[in-house]
Amino acid sequence: MLIIDWKVFNMSIKKIALAYSGGLDTSVAIRWLSESYGSKIVTVTVDVGQAEDFKAIGEKACNVGAENHYTVDAKEEFVRDYVFPSVKANGLYQGKYPISTALSRPLIARKLIEIAHREGCDAVAHGCTGKGNDQLRIEISCRALDPTMKILAPIRDWGMSRDQEIEYAMKHGIPVSRAAKKYSIDQNLWGRSIESGPLENPWNSPEDDGWEWTTSPELAPDCPTVVELEFKRGVPVGIDGEECSPLELVRRLNRIAGENGVGRIDHMEDRIVGIKSRETYECPAAVTILESHKDLEKLILNRHELSFKRLVDEQWTFMAYAGFWDDPLREELDAFINKANDRLDGRVKIKLYKGSMMVIGRESSNSVYDFKTATYDSSSTFDQSLSKGFVELWGLPTVVSRKVMSSR
Amino acid sequence: MLIIDWKVFNMSIKKIALAYSGGLDTSVAIRWLSESYGSKIVTVTVDVGQAEDFKAIGEKACNVGAENHYTVDAKEEFVRDYVFPSVKANGLYQGKYPISTALSRPLIARKLIEIAHREGCDAVAHGCTGKGNDQLRIEISCRALDPTMKILAPIRDWGMSRDQEIEYAMKHGIPVSRAAKKYSIDQNLWGRSIESGPLENPWNSPEDDGWEWTTSPELAPDCPTVVELEFKRGVPVGIDGEECSPLELVRRLNRIAGENGVGRIDHMEDRIVGIKSRETYECPAAVTILESHKDLEKLILNRHELSFKRLVDEQWTFMAYAGFWDDPLREELDAFINKANDRLDGRVKIKLYKGSMMVIGRESSNSVYDFKTATYDSSSTFDQSLSKGFVELWGLPTVVSRKVMSSR
Amino acid sequence: MLIIDWKVFNMSIKKIALAYSGGLDTSVAIRWLSESYGSKIVTVTVDVGQAEDFKAIGEKACNVGAENHYTVDAKEEFVRDYVFPSVKANGLYQGKYPISTALSRPLIARKLIEIAHREGCDAVAHGCTGKGNDQLRIEISCRALDPTMKILAPIRDWGMSRDQEIEYAMKHGIPVSRAAKKYSIDQNLWGRSIESGPLENPWNSPEDDGWEWTTSPELAPDCPTVVELEFKRGVPVGIDGEECSPLELVRRLNRIAGENGVGRIDHMEDRIVGIKSRETYECPAAVTILESHKDLEKLILNRHELSFKRLVDEQWTFMAYAGFWDDPLREELDAFINKANDRLDGRVKIKLYKGSMMVIGRESSNSVYDFKTATYDSSSTFDQSLSKGFVELWGLPTVVSRKVMSSR
Amino acid sequence: MLIIDWKVFNMSIKKIALAYSGGLDTSVAIRWLSESYGSKIVTVTVDVGQAEDFKAIGEKACNVGAENHYTVDAKEEFVRDYVFPSVKANGLYQGKYPISTALSRPLIARKLIEIAHREGCDAVAHGCTGKGNDQLRIEISCRALDPTMKILAPIRDWGMSRDQEIEYAMKHGIPVSRAAKKYSIDQNLWGRSIESGPLENPWNSPEDDGWEWTTSPELAPDCPTVVELEFKRGVPVGIDGEECSPLELVRRLNRIAGENGVGRIDHMEDRIVGIKSRETYECPAAVTILESHKDLEKLILNRHELSFKRLVDEQWTFMAYAGFWDDPLREELDAFINKANDRLDGRVKIKLYKGSMMVIGRESSNSVYDFKTATYDSSSTFDQSLSKGFVELWGLPTVVSRKVMSSR
Repeated sequence: MLIIDWKVFNMSIKKIALAYSGGLDTSVAIRWLSESYGSKIVTVTVDVGQAEDFKAIGEKACNVGAENHYTVDAKEEFVRDYVFPSVKANGLYQGKYPISTALSRPLIARKLIEIAHREGCDAVAHGCTGKGNDQLRIEISCRALDPTMKILAPIRDWGMSRDQEIEYAMKHGIPVSRAAKKYSIDQNLWGRSIESGPLENPWNSPEDDGWEWTTSPELAPDCPTVVELEFKRGVPVGIDGEECSPLELVRRLNRIAGENGVGRIDHMEDRIVGIKSRETYECPAAVTILESHKDLEKLILNRHELSFKRLVDEQWTFMAYAGFWDDPLREELDAFINKANDRLDGRVKIKLYKGSMMVIGRESSNSVYDFKTATYDSSSTFDQSLSKGFVELWGLPTVVSRKVMSSR
Repeated sequence: MLIIDWKVFNMSIKKIALAYSGGLDTSVAIRWLSESYGSKIVTVTVDVGQAEDFKAIGEKACNVGAENHYTVDAKEEFVRDYVFPSVKANGLYQGKYPISTALSRPLIARKLIEIAHREGCDAVAHGCTGKGNDQLRIEISCRALDPTMKILAPIRDWGMSRDQEIEYAMKHGIPVSRAAKKYSIDQNLWGRSIESGPLENPWNSPEDDGWEWTTSPELAPDCPTVVELEFKRGVPVGIDGEECSPLELVRRLNRIAGENGVGRIDHMEDRIVGIKSRETYECPAAVTILESHKDLEKLILNRHELSFKRLVDEQWTFMAYAGFWDDPLREELDAFINKANDRLDGRVKIKLYKGSMMVIGRESSNSVYDFKTATYDSSSTFDQSLSKGFVELWGLPTVVSRKVMSSR
Repeated sequence: MLIIDWKVFNMSIKKIALAYSGGLDTSVAIRWLSESYGSKIVTVTVDVGQAEDFKAIGEKACNVGAENHYTVDAKEEFVRDYVFPSVKANGLYQGKYPISTALSRPLIARKLIEIAHREGCDAVAHGCTGKGNDQLRIEISCRALDPTMKILAPIRDWGMSRDQEIEYAMKHGIPVSRAAKKYSIDQNLWGRSIESGPLENPWNSPEDDGWEWTTSPELAPDCPTVVELEFKRGVPVGIDGEECSPLELVRRLNRIAGENGVGRIDHMEDRIVGIKSRETYECPAAVTILESHKDLEKLILNRHELSFKRLVDEQWTFMAYAGFWDDPLREELDAFINKANDRLDGRVKIKLYKGSMMVIGRESSNSVYDFKTATYDSSSTFDQSLSKGFVELWGLPTVVSRKVMSSR
Repeated sequence: MLIIDWKVFNMSIKKIALAYSGGLDTSVAIRWLSESYGSKIVTVTVDVGQAEDFKAIGEKACNVGAENHYTVDAKEEFVRDYVFPSVKANGLYQGKYPISTALSRPLIARKLIEIAHREGCDAVAHGCTGKGNDQLRIEISCRALDPTMKILAPIRDWGMSRDQEIEYAMKHGIPVSRAAKKYSIDQNLWGRSIESGPLENPWNSPEDDGWEWTTSPELAPDCPTVVELEFKRGVPVGIDGEECSPLELVRRLNRIAGENGVGRIDHMEDRIVGIKSRETYECPAAVTILESHKDLEKLILNRHELSFKRLVDEQWTFMAYAGFWDDPLREELDAFINKANDRLDGRVKIKLYKGSMMVIGRESSNSVYDFKTATYDSSSTFDQSLSKGFVELWGLPTVVSRKVMSSR
């Protein structure tokens, strides 16, 4: 027996803009939403680099019953306004995950709301389940952008099992691929996530058939690849001396680093809904760019900045991960982050080799590294006689505390 | 002309315990201290795994003029009381450096003070320069342990240049190795640091001749090595099913990971004295154990714990790096850290291959990963109908703020 | 039309332990639960100092239909195990609220589960609404203590309006006080909260009729009261030289400070469910003890400890406020906090006068204040010549950054 | 015997700009610097509201030997560019001290460097001792502004005792006030600090003769004063409906709050040089404005913003306190803080009465307080049925951890 949320069905809804992936869930949703609410459906597929056949996706939507379909090429916008800000923020959730899926969600919400407005929809719908983070990201952004827009989450709320879904699809002539999928995949320019199946046992090593963007380290080239990344104001602008558009740069690095087996991630992750899950990702460009950016920061920012920026970066990353892209705090953090990235010009030299990635050189006109104070050779300008006083006062609170404690 | 700190020379000092490495600086210091203060010198060499000829070091000390020499084998104490607590704290300074040298300094200070007491010394002396962090670590710990003990830092305070030192050594029959050293090296069980020379230009890639503990990735074995590390209460206790003493375990991992080219670190580092420096390290065991520990934590601690423990860990690491080992705050942080590591039992599977290190599996009887809630398959016990309410209330503050902001 | 959660009613429940306050909501709940589930009801009232007529409450419960009633005197346990740990943690949510209600909830959950076990209940129930924080605190603690116990929240889930409740009560012979309440009140030994009514407009000043524990400053005594509070290991143990049990001490301070008009709080508060609300509290003892404890910490802890303990304290307070009393992180934070409070022995002198509270003196055998270094008089032992070096190295990163920035 | 730092005297210095207060220390310094270096002296007195006879100060400087004297009226600049940014940052060091002296130092450094440039000086000098924070603030800012400028700290470095100073002054005809000062005072528009003397015993209550800006609570008016403060973009712009210049507003509030006995602070403070000291302050305007600002923030910012802004504010305050005004991090923090203060428009109602200060009302067009969701009355739009799911998922990690822990 289905749990029926009557309030939802009592809503009168005329037209729904549905975020559409072309898969079974959202294909079934077209039909189910239109039946359940008696409303028209407009489907929206946002291209953030997932490398699908968007023409076929659009045709499928219409065949299944969408009144209209939109394919939105948001790849450049995605890199410029979502990915690159995350680079400035060294965006790695729990120190591991480059939040690739997370970054795309508020952008998809924007496009969905835009098209809903253009089409005069009174609701939007998405295909997220109730177990993941995406429902948070899409719904909170949609509400933040238009608090009056109704939001439907059919897959989460209809309570159909996988089998019921397939039955429903076959009954209504919705194409079903019989091949059971081993993994659950999501991908965009910034990364590819591979989860579920054998990976649900955290002790199982990731199997070879899960990886697609990265060559197995054992099969990667026998010669290391050295890449020089050029940064301007905190974002990469060129590779090996050649200027590159943001989109092109990310694509090239995905290819170069991926070929060298770089970018595989195996991670125990805390979802916001309270579930601990095992996730694997392959993010060749992300891993390479983030490590380079962080290294460059250490050349240019001083220790006060580096120490506090870690807190800011972690909070920023949490906001993006947790569905709070549209919170004012994210913009306030960005104000800090942009200011700190203002001076982030320079070059980073990276060695890629059979799964390993190592920054092996960096330079910048804004470097605060000062050879003349740092060097141990005799030309050093650092006046060592200053250290005696520094050492004593630096340690004073510790020494006094210990004295008091030992006399108790 | 030397800068003379008259107060120092006005001190009457009868006997000095000098931390002695066997190198030129501290050998010259034996003579210079004894001349300058007319005092007797006792030398102390603490074995924390630096793999030197300790017999020869002791003989040299006595030849140069030490009245007595102590070699203290502190290897087990070092691993148990300094290195393993840093594992529990995921101790990586600025996200990169396993604070290997830093961890040894408070231990050396302890041994120095102990022997100074036993020998009736009224001063201790160390060979640190004024440009590094070690002066902080040694002096603050010495003062914390005995605030009445005088501390001398001859190398920092005498103002001799390298050439003057050599001249002084030759005049007094102190053996001088003519071979100019390309790098400045420090090593103990937890790592080996390589700095200065060509590395002082941050753009220069580390040269092959600097590495000693790690095989070049290109020359490492063509087959990956998979290692299983067993943890109990947050510290490693076995490899591949075999129990291991702390000391033996660290040594074996240094060998195994090092052979696979794992453990090289290239880092722009902020010293506490205000200098930014370029440091390289090779820490095969440290890198492997720290990454494994962090991974195991993600299996066992929940997201509240993980999120706050990052702050605690960073503060702990800063304390150890900055010379505050003996501050009461370090002990308070340890109380937290030990409590959190209480449940940290389990196994981690690591793949080592040509310079890359990847955790590819983990398991624990205390895991909070729950297949039954996490799985996407139909057996899931997670009640998706709960999510709707969660999503709305989780996003409420963001949505309200945005509404207010858009109506301004 | 009511929203019916059929899953709830499908549950077969034989006996319910209901947290009972004696008010209308929980009185109606006795009847409603017993009708809806056909189950027996045991009521539990936990005395945490709310100063009610507990005998009358018990009789009312039985009259309305409870099979059995328990009054649990938990006042001492409350102060010792909940309130005093919050003192050590300087527990003020958002810098203002001494989390008095919050602290009592996990204790009530404990007692509820204990009695449910003793009585063989298969469910517990509470009277919290869906708009506040208490539902979180009670339910999460109950689940943490016994994840198999069913939890019912009738007031939140039945969907009755106030008028429907009264109608239901009258129909079933449940006593209803006709006097509409101006405020919503909760109280225990650590404080009294006054909310809603005219206070729901944040611009309205709190009216005189809301306050009960605190004399209006204008009517308070014309002479200041000076109190000396004695602390041992971070908790108060005596007043004005006289030892005091925890319970007695809190009561006396509530009286003394309250008479002087001290302890009123007016606060815009963020509830965990996402609602911003205006809350007023009167907490004479809490405000006095917390301010004294914080002051004493500044005499005894050094600046490293004070600076990090603020983060720990805030996190602890958040955990207690947000329903996470039983999370392992709270215990880990307590390990830190207890360690830091170990040395917290001493006396604090407080002046209370017509609504103002000021610490005007403090002393401790563990003070790290050192007259001889701090004094500006000529006996000072602080060696000013050390400062020159300290100042230069302390400022070095700033000066270098600025130099680089000005040459861009 | 004086400790002579020969390097200092070997410096060839032609003309020195000396920050001049008119007191004994800096008067003696005029003569001593000119003798020691054979250089000309220009004196600079910066008026930040210390309410001195600036004409007399200038005359004294010239009489003692200054070649030229500058009085710089920086009061408006001080409030606008230093004090008001600290209001936006809720600037209270260690939760107590409104950093009034600290804020003035980088401004004084600026003026000193400006005049040094105009006058062609090759050095600046200040009268700070080696025991306080001011040396850090002045020297680091001076170096940040002009790293080539020499900096002299005669009072810290000359090693004269108080008696030697007086002897020196009398010998050279420098006027000496015979009255021994009971306290050491510093004041500007944002506050007055009173330290040393009987206050050096932290148990001694502050005596009446130390306070000057605040009426004793016992002597303050018998009727409360209610003030309404108007804020625009985070800074106060009007009192009781009347617009006010920043300078005028601070002055008026100093008077009004001071008359009501509000603004007294008694604080155990950690100086950056490692000394713990007992400080008292009176800061009527600061205390009133800061509390009001913080309250208004709670009406307008959401809980994500409030929680993270506390960290930003504390770091900002530390930077200003610790001499890091000119560090790039301070500007990055300001970027965050300014963004968050953008919406901070509104009014705060404050009751001042015999030493107590309480915010009793607040309103704003940008308030995120929403009566309709917050109210407990039946008109509430908050859908309580959402809470059930929220509560369960919010508590999930805690419950799972506890389950695992109890089954160990």
